[in-house]
Amino acid sequence: MRLPRPMFPLLLLSVTVAVVPAAEGMWTFDNVPAEAIRARHGFAPDAAWLEEARLASVRLPGCSGSVVSPDGLVMTNAHCVTSCVRAVSTPEHDRAEEGFVAAVPADEPACAGMEINQLLEITDVTAKVASATKGMADAEFGRAQKAEMSRLEKECSADDRWRCEVVPLYQGGLHHLYRYQTYRDVRLVFSPEADAAFFGGDPDNFQFPRYCFDTAFLRLYQDGKPAVTPHHFRWSAAGAAPGELVFASGNPGSTDRLLTVAQLELLRDVQLPETLIRLSESRGALRLFSRRDAESERVGREFMLFLENTLKATRGELLALQDRALMEAKRRQESDLRARVARDPEQQRAAGGAWDTIAAATDVARRTGRRHDLVAGGLSGDLFGWARTLVRGAEERTKPDAERLREYRDATLRSVEFRLLAPRPVNNDLEMLRLEIALSRLRELLGADDPFVRLVLARESPESLAKALVSGTRLADPTERRRLWEGGRAAVDASDDPMIQIARRIDPEARASRRTWEDEVEAVIAKNSESIARARFAAYGTSLYPDATFTPRLTWGEVQGVAIEGLPEVPPLTRAAGLFERATGLAPYALAPRWAAARERLDPKTPFNFAATLDIIGGNSGSPVFNARREIVGLAFDGNMASLGGAYAYDGTENRAVAVHSAGILAALRAVYGAEALVKELTAARR
Amino acid sequence: MRLPRPMFPLLLLSVTVAVVPAAEGMWTFDNVPAEAIRARHGFAPDAAWLEEARLASVRLPGCSGSVVSPDGLVMTNAHCVTSCVRAVSTPEHDRAEEGFVAAVPADEPACAGMEINQLLEITDVTAKVASATKGMADAEFGRAQKAEMSRLEKECSADDRWRCEVVPLYQGGLHHLYRYQTYRDVRLVFSPEADAAFFGGDPDNFQFPRYCFDTAFLRLYQDGKPAVTPHHFRWSAAGAAPGELVFASGNPGSTDRLLTVAQLELLRDVQLPETLIRLSESRGALRLFSRRDAESERVGREFMLFLENTLKATRGELLALQDRALMEAKRRQESDLRARVARDPEQQRAAGGAWDTIAAATDVARRTGRRHDLVAGGLSGDLFGWARTLVRGAEERTKPDAERLREYRDATLRSVEFRLLAPRPVNNDLEMLRLEIALSRLRELLGADDPFVRLVLARESPESLAKALVSGTRLADPTERRRLWEGGRAAVDASDDPMIQIARRIDPEARASRRTWEDEVEAVIAKNSESIARARFAAYGTSLYPDATFTPRLTWGEVQGVAIEGLPEVPPLTRAAGLFERATGLAPYALAPRWAAARERLDPKTPFNFAATLDIIGGNSGSPVFNARREIVGLAFDGNMASLGGAYAYDGTENRAVAVHSAGILAALRAVYGAEALVKELTAARR
Repeated sequence: MRLPRPMFPLLLLSVTVAVVPAAEGMWTFDNVPAEAIRARHGFAPDAAWLEEARLASVRLPGCSGSVVSPDGLVMTNAHCVTSCVRAVSTPEHDRAEEGFVAAVPADEPACAGMEINQLLEITDVTAKVASATKGMADAEFGRAQKAEMSRLEKECSADDRWRCEVVPLYQGGLHHLYRYQTYRDVRLVFSPEADAAFFGGDPDNFQFPRYCFDTAFLRLYQDGKPAVTPHHFRWSAAGAAPGELVFASGNPGSTDRLLTVAQLELLRDVQLPETLIRLSESRGALRLFSRRDAESERVGREFMLFLENTLKATRGELLALQDRALMEAKRRQESDLRARVARDPEQQRAAGGAWDTIAAATDVARRTGRRHDLVAGGLSGDLFGWARTLVRGAEERTKPDAERLREYRDATLRSVEFRLLAPRPVNNDLEMLRLEIALSRLRELLGADDPFVRLVLARESPESLAKALVSGTRLADPTERRRLWEGGRAAVDASDDPMIQIARRIDPEARASRRTWEDEVEAVIAKNSESIARARFAAYGTSLYPDATFTPRLTWGEVQGVAIEGLPEVPPLTRAAGLFERATGLAPYALAPRWAAARERLDPKTPFNFAATLDIIGGNSGSPVFNARREIVGLAFDGNMASLGGAYAYDGTENRAVAVHSAGILAALRAVYGAEALVKELTAARR
Repeated sequence: MRLPRPMFPLLLLSVTVAVVPAAEGMWTFDNVPAEAIRARHGFAPDAAWLEEARLASVRLPGCSGSVVSPDGLVMTNAHCVTSCVRAVSTPEHDRAEEGFVAAVPADEPACAGMEINQLLEITDVTAKVASATKGMADAEFGRAQKAEMSRLEKECSADDRWRCEVVPLYQGGLHHLYRYQTYRDVRLVFSPEADAAFFGGDPDNFQFPRYCFDTAFLRLYQDGKPAVTPHHFRWSAAGAAPGELVFASGNPGSTDRLLTVAQLELLRDVQLPETLIRLSESRGALRLFSRRDAESERVGREFMLFLENTLKATRGELLALQDRALMEAKRRQESDLRARVARDPEQQRAAGGAWDTIAAATDVARRTGRRHDLVAGGLSGDLFGWARTLVRGAEERTKPDAERLREYRDATLRSVEFRLLAPRPVNNDLEMLRLEIALSRLRELLGADDPFVRLVLARESPESLAKALVSGTRLADPTERRRLWEGGRAAVDASDDPMIQIARRIDPEARASRRTWEDEVEAVIAKNSESIARARFAAYGTSLYPDATFTPRLTWGEVQGVAIEGLPEVPPLTRAAGLFERATGLAPYALAPRWAAARERLDPKTPFNFAATLDIIGGNSGSPVFNARREIVGLAFDGNMASLGGAYAYDGTENRAVAVHSAGILAALRAVYGAEALVKELTAARR
């Protein structure tokens, strides 16, 4: 499934070169190449079509979704609502295991901490951002740019139902201000049992054929009542058909299709392997942790889902970069552009040195990145995260807006506060385990004699310190977090909570490491990437799309199977019968009891999942797949292994998005879940 | 500590270039550059000195050691005898935890399965091996070479107390036949408690300063009596002094100092990261496994030691290859040599294409290596390993010697049998866990629909299959293993043991994968590496040392501390006082009770560990460090982090070997262990 890609400090923005092939591209809603679509498919969206599609599409934390009724009903993936499902579970009812169906709106429980955004408006602020940084050197450049972005965002988000973000597009070639409507009262309508949503589990993840019912419904509320949502998608009668033109709107998290070769090498040599090593260790531990008892199994499940998904996604990306042919192609593209730049003295002066300067910054990252990650990244787990937010929030809020760490500027402070104060169940054993692993890793990689390791551990062991911190802290209690947040610096300084104390003790070093990294690596790369971006515009023209930025994008393609060398050809649709054949009775191929019972009521030919040439990536989870009439034909939830290489290049021969078929959704809601009211709401919207 | 490096299929042999700096080099005993040592240190070993040093040095499984008395006493590291210590432990006495001291020879228990080798003779067989492969193409070349090597080894090892191995040196530029005296009756004399041997555990591993008493003694037996060993080292009165010239003899496992750039890139991009990812997952699982109960803690400890050591060693190697400067230097060296070759038409014909051919073989390895490792590598754990040995042994023994898989040829069959039939405790829970992780990994990386995955799992899950295999097999019983081994093919074919059955079921695929890999990757690289080796000889002359091959080598250097950029300078010796200061009471910095009690009896100034510029690598664990008079001054057990990069290049400014000081050994044997008889035997040998 497509959780957002892990974000690395160096994964900044980039832009495509030259002619874009059909089906490629994650296009901003204000720059959709309608004529290219028409040329190939005989249909092109117009401005009204695009506005409706944009307003009916929403962004969830790390995911995408669509509004599918006039009463605030939102469709997304089950894997996008796992925190909510966990939060509304009780010791008696594990909703992740049982599934959840609200018969009427009054039964819909709140998803604490979930915020949903709808993009209202895009404004070009490129000139403002550029004038704020004019003529500045690297570190100064970075800080001034952030300050100006914070200022613009604050100015824009006057109404607290709005969320404003300056989005750097085309590697900073453009800066657009995005204004969203925010919904913070979001409730759970439907989520299936894990055995159905994630049938095939990790082994089938990022594979096709598939048999997942990765479907969930939420509802937006305003003033305690279901929100009125006139902009919404309608439901297709037939659903996706092989060869059909389909669209997907959503929020691809990040791509790196035009990083420099040095940046790609840093990812390949250091950053992706380090991620895999770190997550593999956690997975190994979690495998046994989850077996201790039913409660550990329950709390471990969501974390395991995240771990395994990130592991596989990262592995797919690494596989792409391990391919010497891909790297050779990147090297050729870079040489071409550098040669063009070198032929023009003015361009050469402006951008000629940018590649080598970026390469030098990646060398700094190679030498210092591991220590930076460990020192600036902090410890692990929710409790430490809250402690850091409280310590930093207390300090940052005493400063002028423009001088704060970015995430504490006024424009985003409400979201920080919201996440901090929302009730969220804490499992002390899991927190201890995560902390212990992080502390062991810290000592292992820096050595017991490193000053930062001594500052953190003193004479404790990772295990003893983790235990002392977790058992001693009171931060699991949201009222204590509220007391410290509202008490500000005085309350935090006076606290004897051990988690607060360790967060305070290591904060100076962590901030210093972050600042050095931002100045010596990020700012250098940002500034020089902009120079390259301008040179690329000059060389290849304007029919381009920007790298993904977890902001709304539109992409299109065809419903299509896949033929991968050495393997049998896979048709575009799977059907209900295949699910029952694949079920072995053993996890993750165990059939949910409700599905086993419904077998006779489900037509075995019902389309279940399908593949399409849509260019999507992590963050697109929950994206609606719709036809030219803007009717829902499916719900994207994944891509195949080749799609993970889409982080660096789109390869339409093998890259496939994977979606739940709209007909399968309706059939299952009826035959398996008896969710007649929900079906009625979805199909009523068809008229 | 220095367990042997993990061996990768591609890590074949290579040779150094040009002038060798002082202290660099792992020299074969028949080619020690005496004059270079004299030029720098005013002393040079002569032939008699070298012969004595060679005969007093021994090879243990994965380790090195020295004979230190005329009565068969052997000194090595505690971490080299952990299997033996585990085997002689009982539920009442965990010898790893308590330590073990035999008061008299009658108390010395046997180390089942341990074989110790002493190098008697080196014969040059280069011409014979070369004539057997003359004019052959890749795959045929590889098989013919192996057949000839097997023939020579069989011919040589007429007496079953001898072990003969053809050793390819200088990337196959030379083939030498090594004849060893073997000792298979080896008994445990002394091994300290883990808290003392591995004080500082994983965090201090591959670091200096250190405070480890990683010292053990064994005894060789012949005909049930202590062996008579006239060739032995004597003990130095004072031990290692700062700045002193010291030697180390031992069996460095493998180095790759002159792989081609393509081979190094394969290691950096694929093989080393994959190893780290795989081992990290096992470590995570083992962390919790070991906590379940005392028995799990005990059996998990040895495996954890192995895992963490391999992890850190592999990480050190990857760190070296992540350094762009090192790779740039390798690229320059390669370009230089290629340019020299290109200038000579005959050399160009013989070797000009070798680099590109090797690069193409590494591309094959990139595409097929992951599947090959999984299919040919088989499942995991001792039980599966025995099953495979039984299945293959039954089949291979029906073939003529030259046509067998190499490890089943007559010359090595006795060792295979010895390891198979030696009693060895089995922990079913650990076996299940290891199998389950291996099976999950198989399915994760190849996908549930892969034919090999279906062949292995059928409709089982990794967990259910692991459980069924481990709980159903009878191979934990050595008498059952003996019955099947002696019963040969008929017995194996008739067996309904599930572990035997799965080993049989997957064997055809596993053999096919191995053969393809050997033909398309290994043989191509072997043949072309030989061409490069010849060209390198022609270009740079003969004062060279071969890459390590886990055969006896001599190296020398100085007792010296280390100054690493950005860190305070570390002096060459640590002293007993430092141990007590470093002890926090928490593992792995918990002081063993016996040491705490002996604190007053130990002079705080007693030298404890020391660092030296000796060029050693995994496999050198247990190497004696001795002075020009061939007196023991220390016992090598580790190197610092920089020493791990020694796999690819020796850097004398940072690379340090780490050893237990001879004075510390005597002081502790007396004051901590009261091992007066042992001290007497060691110091009597001084006369």
